[in-house]
Amino acid sequence: MTGRFPSPRSSDRARPDVAVVGAGPIGLAIAWRCAARGLRVAVHDPAPGSGASAVAAGMLSPVAEAYFGERQLTGLLLASAARWPEFAAELAEATGAEIGYRTEGTLMVGLTSDDLAEARRLWAYQQGLGLPVTPLRPSELRDREPALAPRVRGGALAPTDHQVDPRLLVPALRTAAQRAGAVLVPQAVHHLSDVDARITVVAAGCGAAALTSLPVRPVKGQILRLRAPDGGAPGFRHVIRGYADGEPVYLVPRADGEVVLGATVEERPDTTVTAGAVQRLLRAGVDLLPELAEYDLVEAIAGLRPGTPDNAPILGPLPGRPDVLAATGHHRHGIVLTPITADLIADLVLTGVPDPLLAPFGPERFPAGATAGSGAAGSGAAGSGGPEPTMEGDRWS
Amino acid sequence: MTGRFPSPRSSDRARPDVAVVGAGPIGLAIAWRCAARGLRVAVHDPAPGSGASAVAAGMLSPVAEAYFGERQLTGLLLASAARWPEFAAELAEATGAEIGYRTEGTLMVGLTSDDLAEARRLWAYQQGLGLPVTPLRPSELRDREPALAPRVRGGALAPTDHQVDPRLLVPALRTAAQRAGAVLVPQAVHHLSDVDARITVVAAGCGAAALTSLPVRPVKGQILRLRAPDGGAPGFRHVIRGYADGEPVYLVPRADGEVVLGATVEERPDTTVTAGAVQRLLRAGVDLLPELAEYDLVEAIAGLRPGTPDNAPILGPLPGRPDVLAATGHHRHGIVLTPITADLIADLVLTGVPDPLLAPFGPERFPAGATAGSGAAGSGAAGSGGPEPTMEGDRWS
Repeated sequence: MTGRFPSPRSSDRARPDVAVVGAGPIGLAIAWRCAARGLRVAVHDPAPGSGASAVAAGMLSPVAEAYFGERQLTGLLLASAARWPEFAAELAEATGAEIGYRTEGTLMVGLTSDDLAEARRLWAYQQGLGLPVTPLRPSELRDREPALAPRVRGGALAPTDHQVDPRLLVPALRTAAQRAGAVLVPQAVHHLSDVDARITVVAAGCGAAALTSLPVRPVKGQILRLRAPDGGAPGFRHVIRGYADGEPVYLVPRADGEVVLGATVEERPDTTVTAGAVQRLLRAGVDLLPELAEYDLVEAIAGLRPGTPDNAPILGPLPGRPDVLAATGHHRHGIVLTPITADLIADLVLTGVPDPLLAPFGPERFPAGATAGSGAAGSGAAGSGGPEPTMEGDRWS
Repeated sequence: MTGRFPSPRSSDRARPDVAVVGAGPIGLAIAWRCAARGLRVAVHDPAPGSGASAVAAGMLSPVAEAYFGERQLTGLLLASAARWPEFAAELAEATGAEIGYRTEGTLMVGLTSDDLAEARRLWAYQQGLGLPVTPLRPSELRDREPALAPRVRGGALAPTDHQVDPRLLVPALRTAAQRAGAVLVPQAVHHLSDVDARITVVAAGCGAAALTSLPVRPVKGQILRLRAPDGGAPGFRHVIRGYADGEPVYLVPRADGEVVLGATVEERPDTTVTAGAVQRLLRAGVDLLPELAEYDLVEAIAGLRPGTPDNAPILGPLPGRPDVLAATGHHRHGIVLTPITADLIADLVLTGVPDPLLAPFGPERFPAGATAGSGAAGSGAAGSGGPEPTMEGDRWS
C-alpha cells in the first residue's frame, strides 16, 4: 500500500529511505545510526521522549537482570551493555551532551535472611552463566556503601552493571539524529499507511500493538524521584538493587543529587500513582538505606513498558512485510538495549540481511494471527507462546 | 507613624478604615465581617489563600483536639465551632458557593491496644470536660465504617466535630469580602508603615513575626491528597483520626473523591516534602483503612502553620499600638477559628472594646520585648512563657 497512495506530507519533499515511528531512545538511536550512514530519515512522534523512557531509571544491568529462563535475552542484554561505553562516547562526540553515564557498578543486597537466600539463588545462577558477580561480606558491603542499613544481611557486586540518565539520553539522541540529518515530524502515526518511506521502523513502544498487532502490552511501572537534602549528592555511589522483606527495589544515584527509587511491575494499562505502591517503594527504599527518609520526594510517576509474552524485544521484519521492521517490546530493557537495537536495525535497513543476533527476537516467533498486517489491536493484546515465559509479578525492577 | 507619611497607594483613594494584612481565611473573614458592617476595608496580599490554608485539611474538631493543658484554647475552639453552621449558611447565602461543609462527625480510633490505651486516656479527659465523646464497641465502629481495618482495636465518636474544604472556603470568603465592598490589594506588606488605615489587622500567619515581633513561628506540616479510584467517592464518610502504631494521623473524605491524609508537625521552616514523612503517613493511613492502598496519590505538599508558645492564637491590639490588631498564631486551628476570630476582631474594630472571650489570647500575654513595635523578627523567634505550653512532637494532627 505505501507508495501507491503517497501521503500529503511526502509530496513536498524527497521520499525518505526510512520512516521511524516513535522518538523514544530506540527510535532516535535507529534514526541517528541510519542518518549517519547516509540514509534519508524521518522520525514521527508528536511528543518525543514522552513514553516509557521519561519514567525509566536507566540501569544498564544485564548481570543483575539475568533471570532464570531468559538466557537468550540475557545474551542480548550483555551484548548491548558491552556496546554502551563506545555508544556513549560517540554520542558525546556527536553532541557534547552529558548523559549521566556512570560506571560505579551495581550492589545487589538482601535485607533479611530470607531476602538474602532468594538473592543468593539468583547470584548462583548468574555466576553459573559466567557473569561477574562477586559476593561480599557484610563488612565489605559497608566499606563500599556505609549508608546501607545495618540490617542488610549481605550483598554482591556486579561491577559491569552501569547506569545512564534517560532524561538526558533522549535529548542527546535527538540532537545526534538531527545533526546527522534525520528530520523530526511532530505528528502522530495512527496507521502504517500514514507514513511513506522505503522502510518503516516501528519503534513506538506500547503503541506498536495498534500499528502492527504485535503482542505488545503495557506493563505499568511506578517510580519515585528523590533528592538529597540541601543540594548535596546522594550518600551512596553504586546503583543498589535488593530485596527488602520480599519487595524487589532499586536505588539509582545521580551526580546532581537525584535518586530514582523503583519500580512496580503491574499488568495494568493506566498511569495513576497509587498510595499503596508509593508506600511499599518508600518502605523498601528506607529499609535498605535509612537516610532516604530525609530526602525530598520530588516526583511520583507511572509509565507503561512495552511488554511481550517472553519479556524479550521484537526486532525484525513483520511476516510478509519486509518493508516494516519492528523495534519494540523492550519492556524493562529499553535503555540498555538501545545501542544494539540501533546497530542491528540500521544494518538490516542498509543490507536487507538480518544479523544472526536478531534470530531469536523476530516477530515470527509469535503465533500467526497475532503478528499480521496493520490492523488495530487492543493494548492488552498479549499473545500466548514465546519460548521463555516468566513470572513478573514478583519483580520490581 | 501611619498617617503622617501616607503611602503612595493611599493618595489616590479614600483612606480605608481597616487594612487587613493577609488574605487567608482569617484575614478574608475579618474583611468580610468589617465590610458587611459598613467599614471601608483593604486586604493586602500578593497571593491570597497561598499560605497554610492551601495545605490545611479543614477539620472542625474542637472535641477531638481538646488536649491536656489547653483548656482555654479548647473553649475558644468550641465557641468557634458552634458558630460554624451559621457562618457556613451566611457564606452560602452571600456567595452561593459550595464550601464542603460536612457534618458526619469524627471517628477517633486506635489501631493497636497501645494506641487504644493512649486514645482512651484522651477520651476520658475530653469526657471529663463534658464534651460529646461516645466510645464505640468494635462492632459499632465497623457498622459506622466497614472500611476500617479489622485490626483497629476500638474507637469513639465525636459527632459534633465536622469538616470544611479550605480550598473552597478561601475563594468563597474572597467573594463574600469583595461583594461586601472590601478591596483586595495584591501587594506584599513588608512593614506596617506600608499600609495606611485607621486600624491595621495583622492576619499574616507566619508572616506576622516579621511585621510585629510577635512570637509566631513556622510549624511545618506535610500532608497528602489521595483520590478514590475510578472517580468514585471515598469508601468512608466520617473524618477518621487515630493512632496507628503510635503515629497520629487523620483521614478526611470529600464528596468529590478526595481524601486528605495528614499530617506531620515539625519544628522546621522549610516546605520540602520528605520521603520518610510520606512513608509514615501512608503506612499509618493504610493500616487504618486498607483500601487507601488502591487510591491515587495526587498530591504531597507541605505548609507552615503559624505556631505560638502556647498553641493558642494571638488576638487583639499590640501593646502600645491600639491601632494594630493581631489575628494570627492560629497554628493547627485556623479553619475552625475563622468564624470567632472574624466576629471578635470585627467587633473590636467597630467598638474599640475587646470581647471578654479575647482576654486569654491577647498579645500582652507574651513577655515584653517579644511583642513590641514593627521591627523584624526571625521566623524562628519563639518566645518563652505563655500559660499552657505543650509538647507537640507527639501529635500529627
